[in-house]
Amino acid sequence: MGKKLINDPADVVREALQGIGAAHPRLRIDLDQRIIVRADAPVSGKVGLISGGGSGHEPLHGGFVGPGMLDAACAGEVFTSPVPDQMLAATQAVDGGAGVVHIVKNYTGDVMNFALAAELADDEGVPVETVLVNDDVAVEDSLYTAGRRGTNATMVVEKCAGALAESGGDLAAVAAIGRRANDVSRSFGIALTSGTTPSSDKPNFDIGPTDIEVGVGIHGEPGRSRRPIAPARELAALAVDAILEDRALARGSSALVIVNGMGGTPLIELYVVFSAVSELLRDRGITVARTLVGNYVTSLDMTGFSLTLTEVDDELLRLWDAPVDTPGLRWGA
Amino acid sequence: MGKKLINDPADVVREALQGIGAAHPRLRIDLDQRIIVRADAPVSGKVGLISGGGSGHEPLHGGFVGPGMLDAACAGEVFTSPVPDQMLAATQAVDGGAGVVHIVKNYTGDVMNFALAAELADDEGVPVETVLVNDDVAVEDSLYTAGRRGTNATMVVEKCAGALAESGGDLAAVAAIGRRANDVSRSFGIALTSGTTPSSDKPNFDIGPTDIEVGVGIHGEPGRSRRPIAPARELAALAVDAILEDRALARGSSALVIVNGMGGTPLIELYVVFSAVSELLRDRGITVARTLVGNYVTSLDMTGFSLTLTEVDDELLRLWDAPVDTPGLRWGA
Repeated sequence: MGKKLINDPADVVREALQGIGAAHPRLRIDLDQRIIVRADAPVSGKVGLISGGGSGHEPLHGGFVGPGMLDAACAGEVFTSPVPDQMLAATQAVDGGAGVVHIVKNYTGDVMNFALAAELADDEGVPVETVLVNDDVAVEDSLYTAGRRGTNATMVVEKCAGALAESGGDLAAVAAIGRRANDVSRSFGIALTSGTTPSSDKPNFDIGPTDIEVGVGIHGEPGRSRRPIAPARELAALAVDAILEDRALARGSSALVIVNGMGGTPLIELYVVFSAVSELLRDRGITVARTLVGNYVTSLDMTGFSLTLTEVDDELLRLWDAPVDTPGLRWGA
Repeated sequence: MGKKLINDPADVVREALQGIGAAHPRLRIDLDQRIIVRADAPVSGKVGLISGGGSGHEPLHGGFVGPGMLDAACAGEVFTSPVPDQMLAATQAVDGGAGVVHIVKNYTGDVMNFALAAELADDEGVPVETVLVNDDVAVEDSLYTAGRRGTNATMVVEKCAGALAESGGDLAAVAAIGRRANDVSRSFGIALTSGTTPSSDKPNFDIGPTDIEVGVGIHGEPGRSRRPIAPARELAALAVDAILEDRALARGSSALVIVNGMGGTPLIELYVVFSAVSELLRDRGITVARTLVGNYVTSLDMTGFSLTLTEVDDELLRLWDAPVDTPGLRWGA
């Protein structure tokens, strides 16, 4: 309970940013503004992409800054939205004269603050388009959200929009592909145990030794139900069914499939889940076109997984496959 | 205690292998032999590289199979050496006519079984060179080891030797660079909590709510001492000091620095540790040439971290930087 690799809880975000800066020399860290920026930003003539949100979801967002993905990310305190000043500073830092896209997870604080930052940027003459991410099918409205929560699709949006921006797409086109990537993505999460915020000495929610939270949010928000733990294949089926009931995928369709850890679940278990998911999709005639299995959008040390299905066509696949060079996602041509 | 994303504990390794196969089409899984092989193996004229060991350390080893790194990996049961038949099958599967290198972590069972497999391979006319990895400075002799334990340096050996094999190095040269990568690497681990084996209903070791295990092994073997949790910067200093007391790095030297999670520690904490490590190295005049921060050599859901310092020269850096395409490490030229 509560043993953590930290110094003072109040310093966790700053020190993690320092660590990211020290580990990744191609990123530039502004410790005052708490923003992570591509070292070569602004890239002249390129649409800039920024995102951000509360900390505790690493590698989201700072781990997705780099060529082919985000130009900058704003880090809030743990599970707390960054403020408009940070977002404005990030917007200005990545403005290469072609406008800036804000990728915003649908939580009330983030939406409000990014909206204010977009206005401030407009006042400064930087046109901004906002892409709202709301892929989590578990619940409508939630502890911090009106409408659906935004989770793993954020990285799909960042990757696909980032690739289009890198290849010269204009502001409207980059925002449009981001919105489309969100529209064809759905996610569903299941928690086995709660994460613990550094400043707290107890888990963020009580769940007991045998129950799980079905449809959990990435801040530990309640989902659809609490029930006893079940075999991985049943939990995989719960997630697949929840997603496909919300947005059916036809036989013959192709999907990017993400089995995402919540921070505390080891890879061997995530692969057990992926095995079950891939069988369920095969049974439904859905082709697994691309995959990610690992910790990408986490919730501190929560255990469990979230599943994301993104229906992909040739354009989205091409953008997904394009080179990317960030701490969290990295591949060549 | 012990909620896991599994089905039957007896099926975890097989199902994880199925998941790896389903997620990574460029790998071929032999479920009978429990080996993971590059889909294009054997590569004619190329020295083959295999490794393997007990499961529970993912992405090690199967996650490091692919162009530029391993040609195959053998998966044992959790924390249990694979058997010689698996190793022989892997050796034969990757034999492109130029011999095969066995990369072996120094645990008694692994060493014995790989030695037997090398003899069997020799009988079949496949020359084998063995590279023993023994980078963990915490203790001499341990629960499963005579001499030092092998931990994170395994991936450094696999990466550097794999790169040389990919570029045409012969059997002696590939083995030699692997041995050199091990010789210049040292590691030290600290556990905050124990992992739990899938077949067990309790943690692998008892540690209580405030103590940590300093010098822990990747199977939860005892280290040097048990002491109360301390701030991350003190734990980082413990690890740096232990490593540099064993093998000093001169001012002006360059190191590959790995801050490795044990499976259950979130990335935000690993970056806090890395920040402290990078300051400690800077104070000693050691240049951080390359870094990895994340979960690479894990111990199920153990929390904590291990630090590895590899002193690098131009040759090792060039091999480290060479393109690699595996589930666990992936980058372009």
